[in-house]
Amino acid sequence: MKTLPFDSVKVTSGYLFGKQELNRKTTIYSVYDRFEETGRFGSLDFNYDKNDPNSVQPHIFWDSDIAKWVESVAYIIKNDPDYDRELEAKADNIIAKIKKNQWEDGYFNIYFSVVEPGKRFTNRDWHELYCAGHLMEAAIAYDDATGKRDLLDCMEKYADLIYRIFVEEKSAEFVTPGHPEIELALIKMYLYTGKKKYLDLSEFFINNRGISDEINNNNIFQSHKPVREQDEAAGHSVRAMYLYTGMAMLAKQIGDESLLNACRNLWDDTVLRKMYVTGGIGSTNLGEAFTVPFDLPNDQAYTETCAGIGLMLFSNAMLAFENNARYADVIERVLYNGVLSGLSLDGKSFFYENPLEINLRDHFTNAFGGKRFPITQRLECFSCSCCPPNITRILPTLGNYFYGIDGDTFYINQFVSSEAEFDGVYCKVSTEYPLNGRVTVSVKGTKKVAVRIPEWCDNFSLNKDFSFENGYAVIDNDGEDIVIDLDMTPKIVYADPRISSDAGKVCVMRGPIVYCAEGVDNGEFLHSFILHREIDATETFSEEFGLITLEVPCRKRLPFEGGLYSSFKPQTEKTALKMIPYNCFANRGETDMVVWFCMDK
Amino acid sequence: MKTLPFDSVKVTSGYLFGKQELNRKTTIYSVYDRFEETGRFGSLDFNYDKNDPNSVQPHIFWDSDIAKWVESVAYIIKNDPDYDRELEAKADNIIAKIKKNQWEDGYFNIYFSVVEPGKRFTNRDWHELYCAGHLMEAAIAYDDATGKRDLLDCMEKYADLIYRIFVEEKSAEFVTPGHPEIELALIKMYLYTGKKKYLDLSEFFINNRGISDEINNNNIFQSHKPVREQDEAAGHSVRAMYLYTGMAMLAKQIGDESLLNACRNLWDDTVLRKMYVTGGIGSTNLGEAFTVPFDLPNDQAYTETCAGIGLMLFSNAMLAFENNARYADVIERVLYNGVLSGLSLDGKSFFYENPLEINLRDHFTNAFGGKRFPITQRLECFSCSCCPPNITRILPTLGNYFYGIDGDTFYINQFVSSEAEFDGVYCKVSTEYPLNGRVTVSVKGTKKVAVRIPEWCDNFSLNKDFSFENGYAVIDNDGEDIVIDLDMTPKIVYADPRISSDAGKVCVMRGPIVYCAEGVDNGEFLHSFILHREIDATETFSEEFGLITLEVPCRKRLPFEGGLYSSFKPQTEKTALKMIPYNCFANRGETDMVVWFCMDK
Repeated sequence: MKTLPFDSVKVTSGYLFGKQELNRKTTIYSVYDRFEETGRFGSLDFNYDKNDPNSVQPHIFWDSDIAKWVESVAYIIKNDPDYDRELEAKADNIIAKIKKNQWEDGYFNIYFSVVEPGKRFTNRDWHELYCAGHLMEAAIAYDDATGKRDLLDCMEKYADLIYRIFVEEKSAEFVTPGHPEIELALIKMYLYTGKKKYLDLSEFFINNRGISDEINNNNIFQSHKPVREQDEAAGHSVRAMYLYTGMAMLAKQIGDESLLNACRNLWDDTVLRKMYVTGGIGSTNLGEAFTVPFDLPNDQAYTETCAGIGLMLFSNAMLAFENNARYADVIERVLYNGVLSGLSLDGKSFFYENPLEINLRDHFTNAFGGKRFPITQRLECFSCSCCPPNITRILPTLGNYFYGIDGDTFYINQFVSSEAEFDGVYCKVSTEYPLNGRVTVSVKGTKKVAVRIPEWCDNFSLNKDFSFENGYAVIDNDGEDIVIDLDMTPKIVYADPRISSDAGKVCVMRGPIVYCAEGVDNGEFLHSFILHREIDATETFSEEFGLITLEVPCRKRLPFEGGLYSSFKPQTEKTALKMIPYNCFANRGETDMVVWFCMDK
Repeated sequence: MKTLPFDSVKVTSGYLFGKQELNRKTTIYSVYDRFEETGRFGSLDFNYDKNDPNSVQPHIFWDSDIAKWVESVAYIIKNDPDYDRELEAKADNIIAKIKKNQWEDGYFNIYFSVVEPGKRFTNRDWHELYCAGHLMEAAIAYDDATGKRDLLDCMEKYADLIYRIFVEEKSAEFVTPGHPEIELALIKMYLYTGKKKYLDLSEFFINNRGISDEINNNNIFQSHKPVREQDEAAGHSVRAMYLYTGMAMLAKQIGDESLLNACRNLWDDTVLRKMYVTGGIGSTNLGEAFTVPFDLPNDQAYTETCAGIGLMLFSNAMLAFENNARYADVIERVLYNGVLSGLSLDGKSFFYENPLEINLRDHFTNAFGGKRFPITQRLECFSCSCCPPNITRILPTLGNYFYGIDGDTFYINQFVSSEAEFDGVYCKVSTEYPLNGRVTVSVKGTKKVAVRIPEWCDNFSLNKDFSFENGYAVIDNDGEDIVIDLDMTPKIVYADPRISSDAGKVCVMRGPIVYCAEGVDNGEFLHSFILHREIDATETFSEEFGLITLEVPCRKRLPFEGGLYSSFKPQTEKTALKMIPYNCFANRGETDMVVWFCMDK
């Protein structure tokens, strides 16, 4: 299908609308302030003085932070005619500095201009092409939103330089970027400007990966094999997602079946063997990476927010090839759980990593150090602060993920109150999803409407006849309202028995929302609660969370007396577990948290 | 009670007899050879030359390795009139070198003689007093076994020097040893020589701990508080056990109730909150230490073999105060599981750490390293090779743990075919324990016999009337055989629900033996096996292991198809799990291993 771009979709109300509003009103400013305070924007003045101890040395990836902030502003502007002109002024100011400080030949990079100018294009792991890619995405978005093409001019010039250096002169000291991103950005550049050399350059970077003899030719860098031979999601999980997204976009543009095949294998390996129930990916902090199939530890989970966003990008790119609801299922899973967990309820702080379990009592340290535990509270900024501006740019573009068109069929991939208009087709969706499962759809301009029946949904009803195709209920469109009711009764979810960390455990989902329990509501030793198969939860709408909380009748195992081990079954007491949406955890102070629980049978 | 010394107990047959024989015939030689090859014994020539690259630099704790080997030889000699004279010759040779190279003033330490002679007694963490303690234990044992008092003379001289430097002159750069051991050794010296200054010196070291302002006054070194205020088993687990043993021995000698009280609290905290089902202690490799209550991860378990041996020493010392079977229960648990696991079936290689779980498939590494996993195969020698000669000295002295006398009662603490004669009392025990639970006891010379009813035992029968006192069945001794039958039916054992690592899991025990399952017998994904409450195991004697193996009917959860998470319960299939004694794991190549399993209800 062709997925509709966000600018043809207007979100009108509901949970995700609330997150977009939070971003527009709070998060975009908060990220700006933190970036300003930490010297990121100031570094654009190119006045770093290494002899002045008060001068802040820019980091090699600050360009990308700045670029993603500008890109986010562009999307906010695009979404809202009444946007804050101050945001645009800030972005204009940033762009003016980029333009001013761009090298004569088109090169632009803060660090390699003011700190180590002699080292440009000497090390593939120094993020120059990664930064360039983000600047290109920002340039396109800003031109598209404002008609101001200064940044786009700069980035075309830069892209032309990169083409010359890498493809024509081969004068860089490496062949392919260590951190993929420019591949997908160049395809966007091609699609936006029509200049084929950008597509060629993207293809060059993708095709040469794992072939040339350069540093870090290992799987952390997705360079252990030529991309068409890669079949296991491996290495740094964000790099992987950005690369695979670029590969899928390239395969679409050049019609490359072998590249598409690799993408399918990589997507399958990610989702069928290496994904948490929250949609989070990347099990280990070591290299922020994938590990091995079914290795999904909960307390040590890394599951970077950016990797979750990357999985959304990759999955949406795959929808271009295949009208299969599984891609939209994964987008929904990761968006509502492992991505939104990255943003605090007040819109100001962020998780870089998103653990699925916190046991504060085990966070010991001694004179020799402590075990490595993921962070337990969100921060407003990180030294490597890629996730915050990735959230600010994903939120205004959520519309990218809702709808698609293929031939005479209109696809409803996500359930969000919104109106879409694209290519003569008009769609209106009304729903309070995910608070409840009623979705009313009205489409004009296609013969058929395909509504995704979510993977999590075991029961639904539809007011029309339908056929079931690849996860979609396909309805002949008579122009009348299509009303679908998805059964959102909270239920027990099991993990594949090959996942040792979840052996014998279950979690609770209500619709697409994964639940957790926190110590602040339930006391310590969360592992000693035992759920029942029929969970019979009491549902309450929480103003604070904007979602439903659950009170789940259960039993709790009681501590032993007199010894740690016994042939007598632990006594239990009847109690109830208060569960909240996983994405809301850690908003009420530092406390224990568990997703996977024991069950009584 | 007064526990009988091993030299009044003759082990006559059975499983532990086999281990003693293995030690006497194989292990003691194998350890000698490895110590010889690595230069440990050669270092006694004091000819280390730092300018010669071929000269092997001795390590600061090589003295203790050598001492424990000599001590082991002494016990082997003591047990067996027909001992190998070659062993004695080797020990004599070692002792001659110690005598020859002892300093004029009594000091002896290889490292601080030949590598850094200027640094003697300058750092409490450099193991000098630890080495001295082990040399003293060896000296006593060797004099006792052979009547050759050269080493004892040397060590009395050394102890006198330590007394002068630490108590009188206070000229050392520290006050108390960083690695406890000399405390218990000095009490043995006092008891063996009758010289009270050794008791005073031990008391000095114990009393000053955590009081003086010296380096490493932290809990890793058990120096965070004065010992009488310590109530949490903390820090390096071997140091802790050696210190607590010394404290208990001192409390006994000087009748110190507050010190005894601290020992009780420390023993309780160790056993009630920080002990694995195998009796292993010390959850983390970081500082080889205790962590926090109920933090007992299985795959990351450290549980050093020496710490298990230390728990035997400490528990036996506590029996001197209290005729309570719980101390003997813990000795049995750790001996049959977490200590004997440290020795390979061929008697030649050793575990320093004893994990409770191995998941080989998760042992990934990438360019940024890998998670820390415990070792999966035993080694013949370690750079820090404390455990092997601790096994060689614990095995010939197992008789120390079997029996006790208090007033007119003879205590049977462990069930081993053996004869004991002590202070006019004669005891004979016949049993095939732990192969089966029948134990026949005959005691002459006491009015009562108290037979421990093991904590693990829910059913037993006895051919005599008895009263039940603190875990012992107390029988009026009429001189006839006492026959006890302990029900050894394999059974499910639960962990305290506060142990998050074992939540919802169970293990299998048969008598005192903890069972595990290995991948070599059962394939991969051991976590997907589900045991039944009534395990109905088939028992088979294994020649290879010298113990019973089990075949346990169970179910196995089958992998999902099409996705990692589902609201449908995993399918299961009927199968059987082959279980072997935990202490026999990792004797058949590198393979997965699990102790704690899911259960079906």
